Amino acid sequence: MDAVRVGMIGLGVVGRSVVSLLGRRSEEVAARVGAPVMITKIAVRDLSKRREADTPRELLTDDPWEIVDAPEVDIVLEVMGGQSPALDLTLKAVANGKSVITANKHLLAMNGEKVYAAVERAEVELGFEAAVAGAVPIIRALRGAFAGDRIESVRGLVNGTANYILTRMELEERPCDVILEEAQALGYAEADPSFDLEGIDSAHKIAILASLAFDTPIDFGDVYTEGLTDITPEDIAMAREFGYRIKLLAVARRAGEDGVDVRVHPTMIPLSAPIANVNWELNAVEVVGDFAGVNLMIGPGAGGGPTSSAVMSDIVDIAGKLVRGGAGKTPPMKAPLSFRRKLAARPMDEVRSMYYLRFTVPDRPGVLARLSGALGESGISIASMIQRGREANNRPVSVVLMTHTALEADLKKALSKIESLGVLAAPTVTIRIEDDEE
Amino acid sequence: MDAVRVGMIGLGVVGRSVVSLLGRRSEEVAARVGAPVMITKIAVRDLSKRREADTPRELLTDDPWEIVDAPEVDIVLEVMGGQSPALDLTLKAVANGKSVITANKHLLAMNGEKVYAAVERAEVELGFEAAVAGAVPIIRALRGAFAGDRIESVRGLVNGTANYILTRMELEERPCDVILEEAQALGYAEADPSFDLEGIDSAHKIAILASLAFDTPIDFGDVYTEGLTDITPEDIAMAREFGYRIKLLAVARRAGEDGVDVRVHPTMIPLSAPIANVNWELNAVEVVGDFAGVNLMIGPGAGGGPTSSAVMSDIVDIAGKLVRGGAGKTPPMKAPLSFRRKLAARPMDEVRSMYYLRFTVPDRPGVLARLSGALGESGISIASMIQRGREANNRPVSVVLMTHTALEADLKKALSKIESLGVLAAPTVTIRIEDDEE
Repeated sequence: MDAVRVGMIGLGVVGRSVVSLLGRRSEEVAARVGAPVMITKIAVRDLSKRREADTPRELLTDDPWEIVDAPEVDIVLEVMGGQSPALDLTLKAVANGKSVITANKHLLAMNGEKVYAAVERAEVELGFEAAVAGAVPIIRALRGAFAGDRIESVRGLVNGTANYILTRMELEERPCDVILEEAQALGYAEADPSFDLEGIDSAHKIAILASLAFDTPIDFGDVYTEGLTDITPEDIAMAREFGYRIKLLAVARRAGEDGVDVRVHPTMIPLSAPIANVNWELNAVEVVGDFAGVNLMIGPGAGGGPTSSAVMSDIVDIAGKLVRGGAGKTPPMKAPLSFRRKLAARPMDEVRSMYYLRFTVPDRPGVLARLSGALGESGISIASMIQRGREANNRPVSVVLMTHTALEADLKKALSKIESLGVLAAPTVTIRIEDDEE
Repeated sequence: MDAVRVGMIGLGVVGRSVVSLLGRRSEEVAARVGAPVMITKIAVRDLSKRREADTPRELLTDDPWEIVDAPEVDIVLEVMGGQSPALDLTLKAVANGKSVITANKHLLAMNGEKVYAAVERAEVELGFEAAVAGAVPIIRALRGAFAGDRIESVRGLVNGTANYILTRMELEERPCDVILEEAQALGYAEADPSFDLEGIDSAHKIAILASLAFDTPIDFGDVYTEGLTDITPEDIAMAREFGYRIKLLAVARRAGEDGVDVRVHPTMIPLSAPIANVNWELNAVEVVGDFAGVNLMIGPGAGGGPTSSAVMSDIVDIAGKLVRGGAGKTPPMKAPLSFRRKLAARPMDEVRSMYYLRFTVPDRPGVLARLSGALGESGISIASMIQRGREANNRPVSVVLMTHTALEADLKKALSKIESLGVLAAPTVTIRIEDDEE
């Protein structure tokens, strides 16, 4: 093979950074791969759009199908995002015998099984390091580094925007919507931030990681997802008083022999845990293996540089195999799909957790007794309590309770009982707590 | 290939853990590799030694050459350690066309170039994930994940014993030798702890990482190495007062276009830096790439479990290539050795750093003026100063100075001038400071 030819679909921030990185490192990459790697075609949405001066205009096309059908293209790099036409393009590329590198977590979370099966059948390579946590080499770690371990859990902060907003909310003691507006103006948050703030993007990523870690298909509908928009600066301050920090944590862990528990929600983590101190737009992923122990990786999870670095790691790996032999021999997951076994999703009702509960109630004698009574009747025991000093003018006050470990179903029962007491002046805030100490 | 056969040299803590792990995961490993992986021979020093009940006695031999010469062995796993006969055994195995997996950092730091060249020539595979930082997949990351980046620096805490002792010294405010004795009794430190505490083991590991990261041979004699035995609880407390923690940090960074700066010494790191908060026996490695940004990996760096997990990742990888094709096609370093270029080691005299200096001097008027005068004459400017309250009985006092960034050669000049003043009641403690803030 005299050269490896890459066809790119998409020329956004990541695509432009890949072009720049490959240009700067052409000599090193050729040495590592054993042949030059070149971009031969780039599909964009709009050919007439103004582009930066160094754009290789002669490579542009507005027909992405040209890329996946081009006989000379060895590797299709999909950095366009979304489901359609990305899925069809990917499947067509694979059917045409091309290897695929993708940064598309949305696609893999929703249609990963289709893609993995097609890739395995066609004996091509699939690279998706860039789909989760940018430059943090978590896909490589789960595919290879912990290949001999029984992975017990994977959890992490996999959305930089959510982490950035929570960090600023704590530092500035200001609400989510205000910070969000500023973050959007600075380019730190998308115009439509719902995927980031409602936990959907994190859910995509943890679904991919869980599937890889536990050798199981994950039905994306089974991933419990709760965003951070109900979190207030008051909750963040309270958490700190109890020795915790609130993070939008994505969690995947085994649930018994045949089950898996995959979810994303705001979570209080002890300040002493390293992951609690990963702030701003950084990502972190923690993997617990039975032999490897607890391993934590921290790094920039998004942006052109880190994402293109991850793409390049896949390009060098796959191009090397194409030139030197061995391409299409390793399954896209860490074992062949035939080895996988569907683990049952644990329903949220069966999850056990400690809880932070903030009730807004009138400052009257007897109210606290009724709250704790309702919790006790459902078998939920209180670990500690803070009631903020009395308010003037009989305004309602916050009563914050931390529970011992309880069953989610029992908590729901207790909260609906409390709801029916008719004393709540505002909806109750519930935040799950992850604390190994208990 | 119906099966992949591993011959092991050494059956210590790591070797026994590999046997156990491979036994427990035989089914998964076979699925991942495409054929069963079995241990067919194990060389031990003393056949008559009492061994655990589950030791596969029928595989034991006391002749390691039998392993490297056995025609049926595909992969030689060297977990014996040391230079001799490990080097000759490794080279013989490679000459016999066998792939090698090694946990031997000492060997690779001193004789890596010989081994890499032989491996590349013989077109076999070399796995050495277990040689540095246990389960932390830093070798895999440098060989693959950051393959497109220009690595600017690699630094880390790569000796668990040293980190453990410093952590306890801080918490318990007790000196190194006392903690060491207890650590030895608990099995946390070796009977001969000199490699760990004098920084030699860390130097081995950073030499391997630097060689890989910067595509250059590293002459081990060029690695500046200073241990932690001169650090006192007083220095640790002082560091904390200034907002720093003392760690035995291994550093490798580029020095201009053609140079490299590789060293190990006690280092004050700002408490706000994540790496400063990696305590106890944990390891951490931080890689800075021009596209990937700052990436930090934290995990258990030693012990049977984590090290055997790293060995298994190499077994699965190499065995998979042997079965499916592609073995011996990727060079052991990230690029072929012909691509490497010898970078010049920067002499310590040319290193620039901030410094912590603790002088022990009589509590007399004029002494401080003479100290700061001598520093000033050598062009070293003082950033801050603490003098501990007066001692009774005219006992000498500690004067602690933090300098701005200065040249190591200038500091040496200043310290020898101060020495000649004749006021020092004890040797001066010098600790380098790594602080991006300045």
